[in-house]
Amino acid sequence: MSVYLHDIPLSQAKEKFAEAINLAGRWKLLEKETIPLDEFSIGRVLAEPIWAKISSPHYHASAMDGFAIWAADTIGAMQTAPLNMKVGQQAQYVDTGDPLPAGFNAVIMIENTEPLDDEERPASNPRQPEFIRIREAIPPWKNVRPMGEDMVATQLVLPAGHTLRPVDLGAIAGSGHTDIIVSRKPRVAILPTGTELVEIGTKVEDGDIIEYNSLVMAAQIRSWGGEAVRFPITIDKLDLIAEEVIKAAETSDLVLLNAGSSAGSEDFSASVVEKLGQLLVHGVAVRPGHPVILGMINREDGSQVPIIGVPGYPVSAALTGEIFIEPLIAIWLGRSPMVMDQIEGELTRKVTSPGGDDDYMRVVVGQVGDRMLVAPLNRGAGVISSLVRADGLVLMPAGSQGKSAGDKVKVNLYRNRTELEKTIFVVGSHDLTIDLLAQYLSQYDRRLTSSNVGSLGGLIALKRDEAHFAGAHLLDPETGTYNWPYIDQYLPKTPVKVISLVNRQQGLILPQGNPNNIQELEDIVNDDLRFVNRQRGAGTRILLDYHLGLKNIDPEKVSGYDQEEYTHLGVAAAVASGRADCGLGIAAAAEALSLEFIPLFEERYDLIIPEKYLESDLILPLFDVLERQDIKVDIEKLSGYDTSLMGKEILKTRT
Amino acid sequence: MSVYLHDIPLSQAKEKFAEAINLAGRWKLLEKETIPLDEFSIGRVLAEPIWAKISSPHYHASAMDGFAIWAADTIGAMQTAPLNMKVGQQAQYVDTGDPLPAGFNAVIMIENTEPLDDEERPASNPRQPEFIRIREAIPPWKNVRPMGEDMVATQLVLPAGHTLRPVDLGAIAGSGHTDIIVSRKPRVAILPTGTELVEIGTKVEDGDIIEYNSLVMAAQIRSWGGEAVRFPITIDKLDLIAEEVIKAAETSDLVLLNAGSSAGSEDFSASVVEKLGQLLVHGVAVRPGHPVILGMINREDGSQVPIIGVPGYPVSAALTGEIFIEPLIAIWLGRSPMVMDQIEGELTRKVTSPGGDDDYMRVVVGQVGDRMLVAPLNRGAGVISSLVRADGLVLMPAGSQGKSAGDKVKVNLYRNRTELEKTIFVVGSHDLTIDLLAQYLSQYDRRLTSSNVGSLGGLIALKRDEAHFAGAHLLDPETGTYNWPYIDQYLPKTPVKVISLVNRQQGLILPQGNPNNIQELEDIVNDDLRFVNRQRGAGTRILLDYHLGLKNIDPEKVSGYDQEEYTHLGVAAAVASGRADCGLGIAAAAEALSLEFIPLFEERYDLIIPEKYLESDLILPLFDVLERQDIKVDIEKLSGYDTSLMGKEILKTRT
Repeated sequence: MSVYLHDIPLSQAKEKFAEAINLAGRWKLLEKETIPLDEFSIGRVLAEPIWAKISSPHYHASAMDGFAIWAADTIGAMQTAPLNMKVGQQAQYVDTGDPLPAGFNAVIMIENTEPLDDEERPASNPRQPEFIRIREAIPPWKNVRPMGEDMVATQLVLPAGHTLRPVDLGAIAGSGHTDIIVSRKPRVAILPTGTELVEIGTKVEDGDIIEYNSLVMAAQIRSWGGEAVRFPITIDKLDLIAEEVIKAAETSDLVLLNAGSSAGSEDFSASVVEKLGQLLVHGVAVRPGHPVILGMINREDGSQVPIIGVPGYPVSAALTGEIFIEPLIAIWLGRSPMVMDQIEGELTRKVTSPGGDDDYMRVVVGQVGDRMLVAPLNRGAGVISSLVRADGLVLMPAGSQGKSAGDKVKVNLYRNRTELEKTIFVVGSHDLTIDLLAQYLSQYDRRLTSSNVGSLGGLIALKRDEAHFAGAHLLDPETGTYNWPYIDQYLPKTPVKVISLVNRQQGLILPQGNPNNIQELEDIVNDDLRFVNRQRGAGTRILLDYHLGLKNIDPEKVSGYDQEEYTHLGVAAAVASGRADCGLGIAAAAEALSLEFIPLFEERYDLIIPEKYLESDLILPLFDVLERQDIKVDIEKLSGYDTSLMGKEILKTRT
Repeated sequence: MSVYLHDIPLSQAKEKFAEAINLAGRWKLLEKETIPLDEFSIGRVLAEPIWAKISSPHYHASAMDGFAIWAADTIGAMQTAPLNMKVGQQAQYVDTGDPLPAGFNAVIMIENTEPLDDEERPASNPRQPEFIRIREAIPPWKNVRPMGEDMVATQLVLPAGHTLRPVDLGAIAGSGHTDIIVSRKPRVAILPTGTELVEIGTKVEDGDIIEYNSLVMAAQIRSWGGEAVRFPITIDKLDLIAEEVIKAAETSDLVLLNAGSSAGSEDFSASVVEKLGQLLVHGVAVRPGHPVILGMINREDGSQVPIIGVPGYPVSAALTGEIFIEPLIAIWLGRSPMVMDQIEGELTRKVTSPGGDDDYMRVVVGQVGDRMLVAPLNRGAGVISSLVRADGLVLMPAGSQGKSAGDKVKVNLYRNRTELEKTIFVVGSHDLTIDLLAQYLSQYDRRLTSSNVGSLGGLIALKRDEAHFAGAHLLDPETGTYNWPYIDQYLPKTPVKVISLVNRQQGLILPQGNPNNIQELEDIVNDDLRFVNRQRGAGTRILLDYHLGLKNIDPEKVSGYDQEEYTHLGVAAAVASGRADCGLGIAAAAEALSLEFIPLFEERYDLIIPEKYLESDLILPLFDVLERQDIKVDIEKLSGYDTSLMGKEILKTRT
């Protein structure tokens, strides 16, 4: 059986799929079903329009507490010429919502009447007086809700295809309905396949992959109005997979086969689809997600159901859901496909794009100064955290070769714009306490989004006005002071304040048991050792260079000096995995991965905040957080941190 | 017991309520609970942050199908200088996701290798060759997903207070979690009270009100993350209501008492709250919704739970939910309160506002030409259909006296902006077929919003560029032709096309059995009869005036000539209710309410479409609909319609 992978354009793939589904008689609303109208109806889609059965109100109703009167009887009543009206004959008490009694055509509010027990004496019960005295004429139909004010019988209340919201339920009930006719929820079977997959909660070994795509897709399907059935994991055996697909096809409207959709040695999806039905498409020119399979599976009764071979990378799988599955569910439910709000913004950095594919790039969006900034996230298809952090997607259509920094791009938003206004951009050096800041700021309705570009990168971002503040620990070798000398050099025109976050230990991160018996900085000069460095501009790298300089060590002698990681945890992970034998970083990173740590130097980690953002509503909660005792306790639980300066302003003259 | 109603400002009311809830120890997160991570977790709110337990990937993984190699071994390989590498020693086949075998540090894609069975012969199995030949040098870590690329152990994955979405579940599972700690769902008891209330589905008599507020509020609470318990209806007896409140308070976090919150003769809510606890607020200066009650109910164990007396009008009830209940649920769940997106637009007409109250006005929003238009909907607190139709709310804060047409206002949106782009504004004369157009257009992802301002009003709206098209049936008494003479007069500078929708019968709408034995137009001149008229500018009114003129009847002789309704169904409802004895209107309206109909004249009802919108993407589906056979069938099922001209252009010379 031939397994091939040939990318075709997205629109063409969708068209082929739609045609085949249509030919199978399935490109239409699923069956209708009648369900009782209750609070669980929200989210269901009307399969038939709601026409009002009765009017609302279905009688003329008093709109106020007061007295029903005949308007013509009140003509001539004035402040200076009051009129007494006999209750029972000319007036009758009504509560709000009461029917207007026969013979009356308006209501005067109780506040505007003087109830009397006889022609002069105030009434003991203002609602059951003998007379009311009024001092104004009332026009006909004043304070009356005429029959049909809200809805008139036969009128369209809601069109078919409408997704029900809470207020809709009221209008449906008020127009005389007790049941609604909705489209049946599409049933989607999700079949995870792969010998390397393990269930959530299994202790993982190298090569194991935690199977969570079926969880994400099931949740997507639920949120789109469908019903998902998650099948157990099937190992990579063609016959076993085929067996499960047959079972799923008999009971579902759509089968999702995840993964095995590529062309690797254990990718059986295409073969299974060919064997059990019709392989329509193998490969779509979208990234991430191109090894998508679209096909039809034959059922025993001769009918066909669609199948999608979903790529295995989690970002690809989630986007396959948005691109292929959601619009199909919309057809079956009879509703419009979901639309995302769009916003235009400015790219913070250059991005390239594979020319032949529609390329979906996850981005973070936030307002900094006057500009709406769009910061690309990690583009790896395996990086689900990029989808978690994303505010939206930028589509770079096939044929575009990429974009430059500063280019305007359109973002399809996952969040609404008001939420974007709560995004704080922090750039610069990475520190674990930034994660804790993020956690605490979320209690103040702020979302901290950090870009780890090193301390110098942070200052440069501030210069370009691309962040609300930066985190830096830049040691000046000349003066032995932190940050200010660099601020003077890189930000001569940007007034900033420097606020201390923490003091922290930097030292050598080493494998458990310190197998190479490293004790001091000099020990890293050893051809048998692989060092792992931080990127250029990182404060830790400057610290290393400073101390190498003090000790007259030539960086070229440090094997691995050119191997760069972008975070402390990246360095620790490199050591933990055996990819490197040592690195320079903070104690907390070593502890996080249970590594050895030899402290060498203490350094100050500061927040650099442009003055123009200091008093902004967005940033203010940061200062509340820096005052809190509980965040200090949380930080000091991590190894190697000292919070005694936390929140203090660091003046320029201070050393 | 004193029942009073004294409106205080919203902020003050909220503050009092928050203080009392805080004093009762309830202004905080509810208890935490641990739940398994599955697709039903979406919508739950994290009570504790998710920190990564393991890295993802937790090993160095191949990012491609290909051969793992040691990068340094490939140095020197070039297009013109290929290099053979021995599989098993220098190279090893890996599938995507496989761990990088020990001793290798990069992967070369299978597409970039030439598999050989010996030093020269192509291999029969490209994945198990003896050698691979390569023609490029590979840098270290190429096509490898390093450990922790996605998430590094100890890193913050999601903060507490985050509401879970599908992709979040993947990140949580991938970082090593099987359970999540979320805040318990708040339990809200909803107690409908009122002797006039009847259950949904009951056959209604005058004075009965269908109880659906509890349904709407239960659905709101569900959609905000809470759990609602709907109590049965309690009649207006203080003791019975008190009994139910006591029961509800013992088992709920919040009690909603609906309605009886005003100061009418059967409004017991304030008394009940005073009796069972503490009445904090009776009356808040917001419209609609001002008779709100806020208080605390004492439980048997000495603790207190908050109670809200919710006003009875459905719009007031729903807005009370948004203003008071949603923010409280947010506190209890530990998430941010929901925020609505905002848009600025231009008011289409003047609106007044009660000076002392915060006034929430429901509006429809749509783009017409270059302008974002904001059209106020019916402002009655009893008109739930206004909430169903609303695109958003405009808040007119206390102290503002109203707004003029053309004023810019901010709208808090219920829909996203992309959905607003699908709104078609039609103004002018009302016809039942416009509802059918709306229903059919919804299948094309268009939302038709109609404003019934009469035929002339429609032309004036087109002149002001405030609608995409207008519906009109304006008879010119001079020429006996429809619409074009008026277009020439009112729209001299607006090029339009006129498209026929239907021909329809106009005639007299009379009570069942025609008790006054009316046969022709002359019969309506009778002092014992009450006629009901349409508003000035309505085509039907012009038609009436034309025929009264032909017959030399003085309108002043028609008693009720000044009593105006704005729609055909309004006229029919007036007759059905006995408020009027006859009116002029269309057959369908009479039939809808089972009334008698005496046809008098046939008239043409046209759509007037400015040329600039004729070819717009927004309007195009209208022409598809006008071509459909099924809508013609649906229309002709109504009485008195002829669709033979439907969709035809009516030229200016045509009579």
